Amino acid sequence: MPSGTHRVAIVGAGQTAFGALPHPPRALLRQSIYEALASVDKGISPQDIGEGYLATLGFGGWQIGNPASLLGEELGLPGLPVSHVENACASGSTGLRQAYHTLLAGAADVALVAGVEKMSDTPSARRRYWLGVSGETEWERLAGLTFAGVYALLAERYLAERKLTTDVLGAVAVKNHAHGALNPHAHLRKPVTLEQHHAAAAVADPLRLYDCCPVSDGAAAVVLAREEVARRFTDTPVWVVGSGGGSDFLALQDRESLTTLPATRRASDEAFRHAPFGRDKVQLAELHDCFTIAELLALEDTGLFPEGEGPRATTEGRTRLGGALPVNVSGGLKSKGHPLGATGVGQVCEVFHQLRGEAGERQVKGAERALTHNVGGSGATAMVHLFST
Amino acid sequence: MPSGTHRVAIVGAGQTAFGALPHPPRALLRQSIYEALASVDKGISPQDIGEGYLATLGFGGWQIGNPASLLGEELGLPGLPVSHVENACASGSTGLRQAYHTLLAGAADVALVAGVEKMSDTPSARRRYWLGVSGETEWERLAGLTFAGVYALLAERYLAERKLTTDVLGAVAVKNHAHGALNPHAHLRKPVTLEQHHAAAAVADPLRLYDCCPVSDGAAAVVLAREEVARRFTDTPVWVVGSGGGSDFLALQDRESLTTLPATRRASDEAFRHAPFGRDKVQLAELHDCFTIAELLALEDTGLFPEGEGPRATTEGRTRLGGALPVNVSGGLKSKGHPLGATGVGQVCEVFHQLRGEAGERQVKGAERALTHNVGGSGATAMVHLFST
Repeated sequence: MPSGTHRVAIVGAGQTAFGALPHPPRALLRQSIYEALASVDKGISPQDIGEGYLATLGFGGWQIGNPASLLGEELGLPGLPVSHVENACASGSTGLRQAYHTLLAGAADVALVAGVEKMSDTPSARRRYWLGVSGETEWERLAGLTFAGVYALLAERYLAERKLTTDVLGAVAVKNHAHGALNPHAHLRKPVTLEQHHAAAAVADPLRLYDCCPVSDGAAAVVLAREEVARRFTDTPVWVVGSGGGSDFLALQDRESLTTLPATRRASDEAFRHAPFGRDKVQLAELHDCFTIAELLALEDTGLFPEGEGPRATTEGRTRLGGALPVNVSGGLKSKGHPLGATGVGQVCEVFHQLRGEAGERQVKGAERALTHNVGGSGATAMVHLFST
Repeated sequence: MPSGTHRVAIVGAGQTAFGALPHPPRALLRQSIYEALASVDKGISPQDIGEGYLATLGFGGWQIGNPASLLGEELGLPGLPVSHVENACASGSTGLRQAYHTLLAGAADVALVAGVEKMSDTPSARRRYWLGVSGETEWERLAGLTFAGVYALLAERYLAERKLTTDVLGAVAVKNHAHGALNPHAHLRKPVTLEQHHAAAAVADPLRLYDCCPVSDGAAAVVLAREEVARRFTDTPVWVVGSGGGSDFLALQDRESLTTLPATRRASDEAFRHAPFGRDKVQLAELHDCFTIAELLALEDTGLFPEGEGPRATTEGRTRLGGALPVNVSGGLKSKGHPLGATGVGQVCEVFHQLRGEAGERQVKGAERALTHNVGGSGATAMVHLFST
């Protein structure tokens, strides 16, 4: 294990259900913070928190231009130093990385990271704009490419290069829907079959309806503490033992390949560089599957599976609950949902409960080491984090 | 002086001129990064940079939803871990704080913080919206209050409580315009007289034209390095020796007073807590003067002047270049300009050149210790940083 100065604990985590919810974003945020504080075994007071990070895109335009201050308002702690962080769909994990650095630096003992997004009440034309700008505008969006279209290009190329059919995309969908059906917080608690996957409407060829994550509302929050103070709050902390970040050209046309996201590779390499375990010891991964193709890319880009092994690992059930390395047992973005700013924080909530053995029907037995992976846009930003008991 | 682990050096700083500029935001960003790298005495390669922070509001809607990746693109370093940070008008200093923590944590040796905003090409109705949401929406903006109106309420109450006339606001304007006239990078290089101040059009009573900062385009960038590597890049680093943050309720109606910004007080207290010098040793301050009243509030909220002393210090010339504690020798937001995301980074550029004796006509003689202060919206967020030679 690394020395204390490389360890930060998660001592609490909470989230709302993800879904098309009636609540305004502030209410979602409040609930997630409440759940996170309430989950701290030995109790915590808002006054214990020294720094706050809010991840949100303010999807659709939410008329709050200085939103980080909401953290202080909802905690009853006006005064708290706060920051609003945003890296498109990777905003939540970006907040986690900032908090991790701030605690390692000793600038605070305890930090709160919260993410929130309200998407379901945005009209579809505006939604298309807000999703589209997470990719590239000049050469993609304004040329008519939707955000699903961007990932469709990646999928088409992937299937062609590897001589695969859409069965492999369907296998990801079937698996993650099966997982999500076990998760009370998931947006889509509905198993689907390969036949249903193939028969569903095309969204952007070759991606069909069940290849795409839903448009979700939701919020998630985690409480982090320096090792020196962590056991004041819980006897069963979950340790953050690695953080990596990466970026890439915004536009697909500027990249050398369409079948790998180098930002993920960079992030994964950095996260493992000083980690107390290697890739072969990971027992559970939450990977960014905004579309089924994204999970396939991530299986190999994170290095969890050797080059070329992702499809077979998927179709053979190795990434299923009960398999050798379960991926997205929460249901993933695909089935649990993808409220943008909340997504990366929600992944950490899943890992927190899994590594404490609190994940109920979807528990990965004996899980002690986990990885989360969160992508911004079509891979122009990415973050990878590692966790252990 | 504190131990090495509390020190991070600024080894390079550069900015564009602030003003109504023809360049697109990406070109402004590129120029500021180029200037910052070129200012590193012993040379630096983009490959030396380990983490990047981009501060911008994307004012007016700039169709780039994952903008931090532009840092890697402009540096020729796709792959760089990057984050987009935003705290309304305090975004730049929020980026600085993150970079400071990341370097203190040892997560990188060198970091780049850049801020950019393009405001002048936004139509005025949309501009009113974008400025308005930096304050509060539900109880202020939608009730008809403009952003200048928010600060006008603070000014009106301040003048009434202290039994002052608008002469004191005019004194701030005259001083900062005189300073800005000496700064080749300033937006408004034009001295004004107290008579001109009083005769100008009202914007939001009691604030008149010369009480308000201009709508500016611009970018600024700084390169920071851990103490362990700083002298590889320069023999004359400027040290960041303190960082403080604070927040407050978004809406004025939720606060206890209209004549103080507690977020600034919290931030200043934190910054000085571990600093190697006290408030009485500060020789130069860049304070957030989006409106003249904001500088008057900050003089006392930072603790640089005792309660009640701000107005007299101003009218007696103590805050002028050549006075006991020159404030906003760059011209401040008032005259140098206020391209939102760039502002807090631009303040650091000014301090960098001042503490190295490179500030030309506006040089504060013998300056060795400085403070910067950056406010988000009407004080819902604030950051204070301390610097020394």
